[in-house]
Amino acid sequence: MLTANNNKKITPRSQDFSAWYQDIIESADLAEHGPVKGTMIIKPYGYSMWENIREVLDKRFKELGVENVYFPMFIPESFLKKEESHVEGFSPEVAVVTYAGGKKLQEALIVRPTSETIIYDAFSRWIGSHRDLPIIINQWVNVVRWELRPRLFLRTTEFLWQEGHTAHATYEEADDMARTMLNVYREFIEDYLAIPVIPGIKSESERFAGAMHTYTIEAMMQDGKALQLATSHNLGQNFAKAFNITFNKEDSSSEYIWQTSWGLSTRTIGGFIMAHSDDKGLVIPPKIAPIHVVIVPIWSKDIDKEAVINKAREIKNNLVNDLNLHVKVDERDGLHPGEKYYYWEKRGIPVRLEIGPRDLKNESVILVRRDTGDKENVVFSLVNDRISALLKDIQNNLFNKALKFRNEKTKEVSTWEDFVKEIENGNFVLAHWSGEASTEAEIKEKTKATIRCIPFSEGESEGKCILSGKPSNKRVIFARFY
Amino acid sequence: MLTANNNKKITPRSQDFSAWYQDIIESADLAEHGPVKGTMIIKPYGYSMWENIREVLDKRFKELGVENVYFPMFIPESFLKKEESHVEGFSPEVAVVTYAGGKKLQEALIVRPTSETIIYDAFSRWIGSHRDLPIIINQWVNVVRWELRPRLFLRTTEFLWQEGHTAHATYEEADDMARTMLNVYREFIEDYLAIPVIPGIKSESERFAGAMHTYTIEAMMQDGKALQLATSHNLGQNFAKAFNITFNKEDSSSEYIWQTSWGLSTRTIGGFIMAHSDDKGLVIPPKIAPIHVVIVPIWSKDIDKEAVINKAREIKNNLVNDLNLHVKVDERDGLHPGEKYYYWEKRGIPVRLEIGPRDLKNESVILVRRDTGDKENVVFSLVNDRISALLKDIQNNLFNKALKFRNEKTKEVSTWEDFVKEIENGNFVLAHWSGEASTEAEIKEKTKATIRCIPFSEGESEGKCILSGKPSNKRVIFARFY
Repeated sequence: MLTANNNKKITPRSQDFSAWYQDIIESADLAEHGPVKGTMIIKPYGYSMWENIREVLDKRFKELGVENVYFPMFIPESFLKKEESHVEGFSPEVAVVTYAGGKKLQEALIVRPTSETIIYDAFSRWIGSHRDLPIIINQWVNVVRWELRPRLFLRTTEFLWQEGHTAHATYEEADDMARTMLNVYREFIEDYLAIPVIPGIKSESERFAGAMHTYTIEAMMQDGKALQLATSHNLGQNFAKAFNITFNKEDSSSEYIWQTSWGLSTRTIGGFIMAHSDDKGLVIPPKIAPIHVVIVPIWSKDIDKEAVINKAREIKNNLVNDLNLHVKVDERDGLHPGEKYYYWEKRGIPVRLEIGPRDLKNESVILVRRDTGDKENVVFSLVNDRISALLKDIQNNLFNKALKFRNEKTKEVSTWEDFVKEIENGNFVLAHWSGEASTEAEIKEKTKATIRCIPFSEGESEGKCILSGKPSNKRVIFARFY
Repeated sequence: MLTANNNKKITPRSQDFSAWYQDIIESADLAEHGPVKGTMIIKPYGYSMWENIREVLDKRFKELGVENVYFPMFIPESFLKKEESHVEGFSPEVAVVTYAGGKKLQEALIVRPTSETIIYDAFSRWIGSHRDLPIIINQWVNVVRWELRPRLFLRTTEFLWQEGHTAHATYEEADDMARTMLNVYREFIEDYLAIPVIPGIKSESERFAGAMHTYTIEAMMQDGKALQLATSHNLGQNFAKAFNITFNKEDSSSEYIWQTSWGLSTRTIGGFIMAHSDDKGLVIPPKIAPIHVVIVPIWSKDIDKEAVINKAREIKNNLVNDLNLHVKVDERDGLHPGEKYYYWEKRGIPVRLEIGPRDLKNESVILVRRDTGDKENVVFSLVNDRISALLKDIQNNLFNKALKFRNEKTKEVSTWEDFVKEIENGNFVLAHWSGEASTEAEIKEKTKATIRCIPFSEGESEGKCILSGKPSNKRVIFARFY
């Protein structure tokens, strides 16, 4: 299905970042707004990226002993109310079913915004003994959180995600699980999506509703704003107490279980779009690209067509068979080569291979990499090797470019004037904070920046809170955010 | 997670088929009822079967050029009303969201019972020219149809399925698509789920709400009732007219598109449970089994334990590496071998391998097949070959047994007395029908049997309608059904 409007002009990033983002998605034919405000139609090309993300992560989860399940999406309203801070956090965002099967329901149903409550109700039935622990389950599902300011992939009323839920016998085991899963996310996002992230812990006011600790990975987008790409929660015994989930220990005493939950969503697609794309269109990290190489056969005279296309197909077969790559030969009639280049450039295919009659004679092709636009001539016999190397190089280049960008735009400051200036300049700011929620709230009100995380990497250092001047022993990351 | 109650007694099929079915699911730990009436929690073992089904079918779809997408699950109420027979068919079953984000909504939202309307609204925007056709898309999603008499896997308020939706330039192309997909379903269900099916066309009163023709595959369960396992609809131009989806032909004239939709759901899991399981528990066709072989190491003295377990692991590794099978070694302490046999039998593992100290000396193992219970001694060197052959044999045996059962319980009748008798006996009945919906309705009222399908295989034959005596030129399949 090749339905996108090929003449869509892309707004430059420097002019309007938000319009640029929307244009990238539209011109690459990834997704569009659904008829209900805030919803999203994920089109084939966009969905194939979610399939790739899911496949890689699901395999990794299973290696770690995670079992997939499916829980109903309708949650009795009473369940949501059992954990006090959970209901407070989610009540304003939920969609509610009040009629079904032609009748008004006796109890309203919440469309899951997340599934802690319905899953832990089952845990209270499933768990009795230490022999039932640990439970490590996950589901790939749709969830609903009503959005007033929707943005494709980043904030949509309905989105796709995975949510893992675990039950353990001890705090240590649960905390280890939560940190392990954060690290799985970190590795995946750095290795596959080529986005460098800062792992850390959330401040109390940014914590998941009902969690004891929320661990997060935060990334910088090209406008300097932060995007939270995944979170993993040590839930402590909060839900265990709300749902009365206890287990008998080996010594026959009874204790509440310790729990974690962790999730990653279609937001990650918005993440790599905003981290890597340019004014020409989408840029996709090769490891997650649905198509790695597009081959554009070029002919002006009909007598050249067959030979050129045959060679293009032969090159494709070699790439598919020897390197297991996904390769597309664009054999469409009626389009100039330039139109085809433009078409695939906007779709972010990592490598373009051009081949025409003169190349046949020279036994070589032209390779163009999407990230830098660099061109090179490569003889037939070296095409596979060169493409293999190029894909690795593009993957690394995207990561390194994003890391360099973030490093340059991360400022350590010690005065309030500098803090305001660097936030205004669209930077990440490392600053001392005394740990008070009131100060955090005041900073947000004054600058629209929040604490993205207290980085694991940040050692202790004596200092004074950037706003209150009270003693602080650590710098944290402040930034504006999505 | 091994949480099932190991002492669950299974009601014999002959005593209460419906209780037997529920017991099989519970004792194999596949699924349970959710807190909201009619909903279902699919547990890890049950869900892994859905994953296997999805993996095989999705691969086949993609070979045929199907592209996956995701459409929002909330459908504006006004969309559902655009196609008259569609809204009539689905209105009584829908769940309705009336509040969201803390406010009453201006337009109520339907939770998708199926996605024709929301997808075809997009088609009306996406399609303009014959160059935009065909569109062949699919989504793997949850849908909601309110159920008053829920039954796990067979009829649940929320279920998982795939729904394919296509748009074509001609009637012939659409009809070919609908029939091709029915055949994909037929091949999958016969080859993987080992259930013989009868492909055919639905009578008007059993047709999908909004379709021109509904093609179906129908199977016989062990109580003689019919289960519809998948359907594929030629939608004609019904939705194209309701949603005003036209395309410009090469000659510049404009025409409505031709469409199909087709679906297969978690109901198929209920299908193979009811087709193959026995009074000892679940029986799973090897090609869809999450675990092919369970190895039970046996030791009574501690000094034997290590040698037996090491050999068990070695055998497992050989099966995994050479045959790519999923193998489980049950090393649990504190359970007698008999308890382990019982445990895995209820879970339907196709082959059990027993190995103890005496077997080590004899360099042989005992293999037990789940379908027949037959045991055999096999020397170490032949284990892989023998298991490979056994799995194929079990797969074939399940299919052949089900086919023989269905053939024996399919009766061709020519009088109303015989018709009633054979329906009462729980058979499929091949009988003449004049084509009148009123007769069909009367037969349903009198006998609870409906026309399952007009089989493709049934040639023309002169006869008289089994109830009305009016002339008929074809026999159709009548049966009671799920």
